[in-house]
Amino acid sequence: MRSLRKTVLLAIVASVVLVMALLHSWPTRAHTTVDVWQRPGPAVERHLEERFPEPDHRSANIPYRVKESVAGLLARNGCVCEGESGGMNLPFAQLLFPRVSAHPMHTAFEASELEEMKKRRAKEYQGFQMRSQTPADMLIVAEANNPLQYPTQGMEVRPLKTILIPGLAVQDHPRELYTVSRPITFGLSYYFQYYSICLVLVFFVLCLPLNFFLSQVNFTSTLGTLNVAAEVEGVKVKGDGEMHMTLTSSLLSNLNRQLQFVTYTNTLFHPSTADTVQVETEGHQAMFTIKVRHGVTPKLYNTGPKGEYNISALVTIATKTFLRYDKLQDLIDSVRKYYSTVTIVIADDSENPKMVSGPYIEHYIMPFGKGWFAGRNLAVSQVTTKYVLWVDDDFIFTANTKLEKLVDVLERTTLDLVGGAVREATGYTATYRQTMSIEPGEEEGDCLHMRRGFHHIIQGFPNCVVTDGVINFFLARTDKVQQVGFDPRLARVAHLEFFIDGLGSLHVGSCDDVIVNHATKIKLPWVSQSESDKTYAKFRYPPASSDATHTKNGLLYFKNRFQCLTHN
Amino acid sequence: MRSLRKTVLLAIVASVVLVMALLHSWPTRAHTTVDVWQRPGPAVERHLEERFPEPDHRSANIPYRVKESVAGLLARNGCVCEGESGGMNLPFAQLLFPRVSAHPMHTAFEASELEEMKKRRAKEYQGFQMRSQTPADMLIVAEANNPLQYPTQGMEVRPLKTILIPGLAVQDHPRELYTVSRPITFGLSYYFQYYSICLVLVFFVLCLPLNFFLSQVNFTSTLGTLNVAAEVEGVKVKGDGEMHMTLTSSLLSNLNRQLQFVTYTNTLFHPSTADTVQVETEGHQAMFTIKVRHGVTPKLYNTGPKGEYNISALVTIATKTFLRYDKLQDLIDSVRKYYSTVTIVIADDSENPKMVSGPYIEHYIMPFGKGWFAGRNLAVSQVTTKYVLWVDDDFIFTANTKLEKLVDVLERTTLDLVGGAVREATGYTATYRQTMSIEPGEEEGDCLHMRRGFHHIIQGFPNCVVTDGVINFFLARTDKVQQVGFDPRLARVAHLEFFIDGLGSLHVGSCDDVIVNHATKIKLPWVSQSESDKTYAKFRYPPASSDATHTKNGLLYFKNRFQCLTHN
Repeated sequence: MRSLRKTVLLAIVASVVLVMALLHSWPTRAHTTVDVWQRPGPAVERHLEERFPEPDHRSANIPYRVKESVAGLLARNGCVCEGESGGMNLPFAQLLFPRVSAHPMHTAFEASELEEMKKRRAKEYQGFQMRSQTPADMLIVAEANNPLQYPTQGMEVRPLKTILIPGLAVQDHPRELYTVSRPITFGLSYYFQYYSICLVLVFFVLCLPLNFFLSQVNFTSTLGTLNVAAEVEGVKVKGDGEMHMTLTSSLLSNLNRQLQFVTYTNTLFHPSTADTVQVETEGHQAMFTIKVRHGVTPKLYNTGPKGEYNISALVTIATKTFLRYDKLQDLIDSVRKYYSTVTIVIADDSENPKMVSGPYIEHYIMPFGKGWFAGRNLAVSQVTTKYVLWVDDDFIFTANTKLEKLVDVLERTTLDLVGGAVREATGYTATYRQTMSIEPGEEEGDCLHMRRGFHHIIQGFPNCVVTDGVINFFLARTDKVQQVGFDPRLARVAHLEFFIDGLGSLHVGSCDDVIVNHATKIKLPWVSQSESDKTYAKFRYPPASSDATHTKNGLLYFKNRFQCLTHN
Repeated sequence: MRSLRKTVLLAIVASVVLVMALLHSWPTRAHTTVDVWQRPGPAVERHLEERFPEPDHRSANIPYRVKESVAGLLARNGCVCEGESGGMNLPFAQLLFPRVSAHPMHTAFEASELEEMKKRRAKEYQGFQMRSQTPADMLIVAEANNPLQYPTQGMEVRPLKTILIPGLAVQDHPRELYTVSRPITFGLSYYFQYYSICLVLVFFVLCLPLNFFLSQVNFTSTLGTLNVAAEVEGVKVKGDGEMHMTLTSSLLSNLNRQLQFVTYTNTLFHPSTADTVQVETEGHQAMFTIKVRHGVTPKLYNTGPKGEYNISALVTIATKTFLRYDKLQDLIDSVRKYYSTVTIVIADDSENPKMVSGPYIEHYIMPFGKGWFAGRNLAVSQVTTKYVLWVDDDFIFTANTKLEKLVDVLERTTLDLVGGAVREATGYTATYRQTMSIEPGEEEGDCLHMRRGFHHIIQGFPNCVVTDGVINFFLARTDKVQQVGFDPRLARVAHLEFFIDGLGSLHVGSCDDVIVNHATKIKLPWVSQSESDKTYAKFRYPPASSDATHTKNGLLYFKNRFQCLTHN
């Protein structure tokens, strides 16, 4: 009997536990759906009207004179692929007087496939735009004489969280003035308006009953709800917790106190977007955006012990090699003379890879001929220090190759990358500084303009300048370089493509007082490969290499949506 | 004689050419300097006042009642590291009723080094903030009753380029009204103001001479200059081409026409920042920002011929292997049953690497034991297709592993990554969905909260949801995954760290109807390694591995600046 009772008791307890577990795990909240489809919806109106705005009826007759020196700087409707024409036709003309040449990118494709490529590129670009634009990019113009005081910038809420909306208020003004003054001012001269306004004002203000002065503020949001964190006496709140909320009061000061407690709660999850909130009072409207996004998580690096710059803790040297083990060994030996414990990462896509070993050497073997930028991307993907120093495998470190100087620049400035100088056997030293700008185009694509030179000298670092592209000897923040990346689709020669991909993201500098030697006897321009590479560049392509979009120009055309490249 | 004359002539021509070359290349413009130092300057005021704003003198006496249900949602001052306490202490309690547990991150460090780590982290974080914040993040509040109409959002100029500033205007209003009404309304009740205003208005408007109505608008900028693209009759422009410009006119309509031609030219180069422009008229001020940045260059991928999804052209399979060549081969064989030409990229850090070859197989050899995330980063760094599919080396493809379904989700939605489901030998299928949120903290760091589950179901894809982290079987946009990256500092077990680094950047989804089988007989939770890995995880570290910031918690503490992790 007893044991039976015990069993029954245990069974009851077990079933109670199971039932509670079931209840607990029962889906308690109805899951909402979200629409994340890529559809060609109302495109966010981003194009600022670069043409002069059409005059309205009031200003149609006002004469003006175009100021060419300024008007000529405005963006044109689409960019045109043209270089500098004319110039002298003398020997060495291009060397002495470098002219700008223009190169259309569509030439990477056969005429037969170009149309298909254009369509495909347009479709991919549309998807990209839909994913990258938010209401925070939209042009908003604040109405004049709006009794509303409201925040126009700077609001941000984490997804599904709540914030107080700061700065909201309604400031008193003679309301009837606006209702009446508009039709009166229409067509009348400036001065006459004042007299008319005053007369009407006297009439209306004196005659209207006092309870006409009920103030109301309406809010509307789309990706979240509005509410109040506290309820103020004398204010009626309607629609709290919904996407449309109204605050009404006959006492303006109470209404303003209530406005200090208005909250916004994001309810439709998105990792990075913006909600547009509309506020309205007495016929006046205002609009502002609240960014909805996870905060920007920092990616910080441990810098090692304090004191002098500990280069081994701060810097990893990265390089790619192909067939040139002798030059590679010379590089390693020269590095070790000055930096015995700095890690060197080597990406190697040689056909019969040899062993490269030693303390603080990391050697990576790739499929044969996988490619130049693939190798660069591999090497930087393995770096675990705050900075990465890129070197070509035929460089030689000398006493002038003071990495501490480059580290000092990145430690003290907001630059992300700083290039050095490469000295040829002839003594000629190059920094290969390039400025770049993108001129927006229309369906044909944008125009990329590259010019030798720089933007400014860096204050405090007289040997250093700010530019957009540098030579292949640079120190950079590892997280920024990894973020930009070296596109593995570029199997052949490539250099500035990295900086093109980094535009808007990398803050680039160049110092000419940190010099590395170049071992190659023949001076080669920075965008070509060594001789042995050239011979079998043809064999480097994996089967998909028949893809024209993997050539330099094909990639600029398709991937970056350029129609034209101009340079000097 | 003749030959001498010819020589002299040639010499003259040559020297003329040389002189012209010299003149041409002579630095014609004085280079300006730029200050890019990281200094603790006036920190951009980002912290929205989350506490209730202090009442001013006018509202000090207005009573209000706090609404706890809303006020409780506002961010606290700093986050607190606490889990759920209490709960039943029954067997299987944690399994049936999973409680939230809290884990402080500082425990990764010895007590002796913690203080040093905190200081270093704070210094690195300060640098990060200085590099990532711009005036576009600052809180701006629009003044009420401002006669200025102006743009509050959406303006962008490429570095060193020029744009028209849209939407500027001054709208007429009885000016004297405001000059006088402020002292009058001070302290008076709402209704009485109207009568007083009117009386004063009549007086001032009728008595003042007409030429008192000269309108003036002042502009001030900091990173560029202001100008006008056309000059309108009747408007005096002063300071055009400088950082402070004034427009004056006695005719408001002419002034407004002139305002339509105001331009901004960026002169201080920066790849991504914002300039704050201040506008002032008759005592009223307005402020707005113009973003200064290179446009966002798209990174588009060629998707292959039209028609059905061409998986080989769209997808590359990536995996990392370590000692498990048999399982790896099973994976490859199972993939080939369904997708015979999809490229498979394999990162391998085994001690004695074996050859893994075959058509469309890319095998990369890494230094022995370099690490789990290093291998993952390597593999994805080599992908050249639009999408990358991550798989573990012990997965088995089945007829349910329809990659076309995952591709369909990414082609049609704005998601960046979509996870599938992994089926154990027992039949148990896991999607491992995790939602994440970061609660901002103060100097101690932020709190990361992870909870099992998802945010919403995806409209149109009833088997799919939106979440923040998923299982290790997912299809993703290659450019987004490369941008986020797998931190090579994580040598040991790690999984969600990738999704943590992707917060705010990756739009993550999860579908439970695309299933891959898991070959391992023992069911392991997703954050642990296989048995053989465990045995020598100790030997995996390169010499710098004594760096505690390279452990999971150490990295969360230092790199991402977390103080606490809570999860259920």
